[in-house]
Amino acid sequence: MEVGIVGLGLIGGSLAIDLRSLGHRVVGVGRRVETCELAIARGMVDEASPDLASLAGADVVFLCTPLGVMEATVRELVPHLKDSAILTDVGSVKQPVVEAIAPLWRNFVGGHPMAGTAESGLEAALAGLFVNRPYVLTPVASTSAEAIAVVGDMVRSLQATLYQCQPAVHDRAVAWISHLPVMVSASLMKACLQESDPIVLELAQQLASSGFRDTSRVGGGNPELGVMMAKYNQTALLESLKVYRQVCDHVIGLIEQSRWHDLEAILQQTQQARPSYLRSETER
Amino acid sequence: MEVGIVGLGLIGGSLAIDLRSLGHRVVGVGRRVETCELAIARGMVDEASPDLASLAGADVVFLCTPLGVMEATVRELVPHLKDSAILTDVGSVKQPVVEAIAPLWRNFVGGHPMAGTAESGLEAALAGLFVNRPYVLTPVASTSAEAIAVVGDMVRSLQATLYQCQPAVHDRAVAWISHLPVMVSASLMKACLQESDPIVLELAQQLASSGFRDTSRVGGGNPELGVMMAKYNQTALLESLKVYRQVCDHVIGLIEQSRWHDLEAILQQTQQARPSYLRSETER
Repeated sequence: MEVGIVGLGLIGGSLAIDLRSLGHRVVGVGRRVETCELAIARGMVDEASPDLASLAGADVVFLCTPLGVMEATVRELVPHLKDSAILTDVGSVKQPVVEAIAPLWRNFVGGHPMAGTAESGLEAALAGLFVNRPYVLTPVASTSAEAIAVVGDMVRSLQATLYQCQPAVHDRAVAWISHLPVMVSASLMKACLQESDPIVLELAQQLASSGFRDTSRVGGGNPELGVMMAKYNQTALLESLKVYRQVCDHVIGLIEQSRWHDLEAILQQTQQARPSYLRSETER
Repeated sequence: MEVGIVGLGLIGGSLAIDLRSLGHRVVGVGRRVETCELAIARGMVDEASPDLASLAGADVVFLCTPLGVMEATVRELVPHLKDSAILTDVGSVKQPVVEAIAPLWRNFVGGHPMAGTAESGLEAALAGLFVNRPYVLTPVASTSAEAIAVVGDMVRSLQATLYQCQPAVHDRAVAWISHLPVMVSASLMKACLQESDPIVLELAQQLASSGFRDTSRVGGGNPELGVMMAKYNQTALLESLKVYRQVCDHVIGLIEQSRWHDLEAILQQTQQARPSYLRSETER
């Protein structure tokens, strides 16, 4: 098949590498000519340019742009696509994307490959990035069965683990396990910076170890990505944050009232529950 | 020197291994006869028994019992010690320990080796556990200079990194970087369990990956340890938790009001600040 990749960053580049090595003809579209030339030079794509018209022959197109420009990109793209072309995206939030794009193209199915590295950009693209990682498709009532089948097959060919759910279910699930942790973790780091005694602050920095490193990691990540999560998944993230705040208030109350038995019951519950969240874990 | 170790768990056992291999004669005291026999069989100690009277000849004694029994153990121990004996502890909170024990023995200096593994108990004891790890001593005005010097030399001989500060400064610093992260992380896990839709809950568990794993790790640890932190460092932990709650409230407000620029400024600040907390990091 001829596969188009719009947006040659970490995800777009990694998709290009794998899909081309699976025998597809891959056409890349990147904003910058230098990125397109790099993708060609590295053998990631068969051709690449900033021109969306180059996707006129594409059977499947992956939208791999930032969330903020996806809708505008699709409006610009659709006049060039052939009628049978199937469109999918890789955005990390699904409801706003599906609501914006499904009305613009019948053969569209939303997707979210849950893979990444600490790096971004085409230079960070990797073969096999999606192997054993979750890849969620979020069809709605209007989604064509063919779009689901074709993109689903392609996801399986990447050796990713395919999930299918409603866009809103996806967004609530990732609010809990991806977006809420970023805000919780960033708030921890920010709270530590409020310490007014420089001696305590300095000692805290010197004594911080693996526990602090792990708990603060996702809150110390890319600020733009954090804002994108909040902006596009605002409703679900706020719901999660408010439940989280209630739990924090409860924990503070237990500690204030020296209710150690009740605190221990919560810590036992969290210790027991955590393995359920690490079932599909592969270390990266 | 003759070194006594009261409490043959992970920390006591690891201290015994290193100090004996440095040429000291090591006498262990454990509650259970089986643990004492194991310590002898493994060559961790020269002798071991449940009898505190066996420490009559000790020059330095490390108290490695849980925080809850430390004061009672010292009251039982001091009639057996020779006048010149130096006493130190390894408790993870310092102010209540120092306040309870300093009046009972002139040659006492509080200590906290910040090392550990996910395991506990004598079976988990390791040679070199303290190498390049922080080891905090918390002398007060009444602490004898000799106790500080002797224990300080011993800490350095373990190749640990020695810090010295007031007990309250230690407790505030560890509240930030050790005890607050446990409550933040446990609250994250607990909040996720509040999701009422089983489909969302199941998907969240399936999609959870390294970000969730890291942020939830310390909240999924030993419940008894978590309660000990809260119980013995109640004041400092509550102060940290209340600052943290204010930060959470602020973040929630920014997201509610779509103040993306202000949210990005916070995420930039946390991204920039985090490396200062990872300076003395050694992976374990």
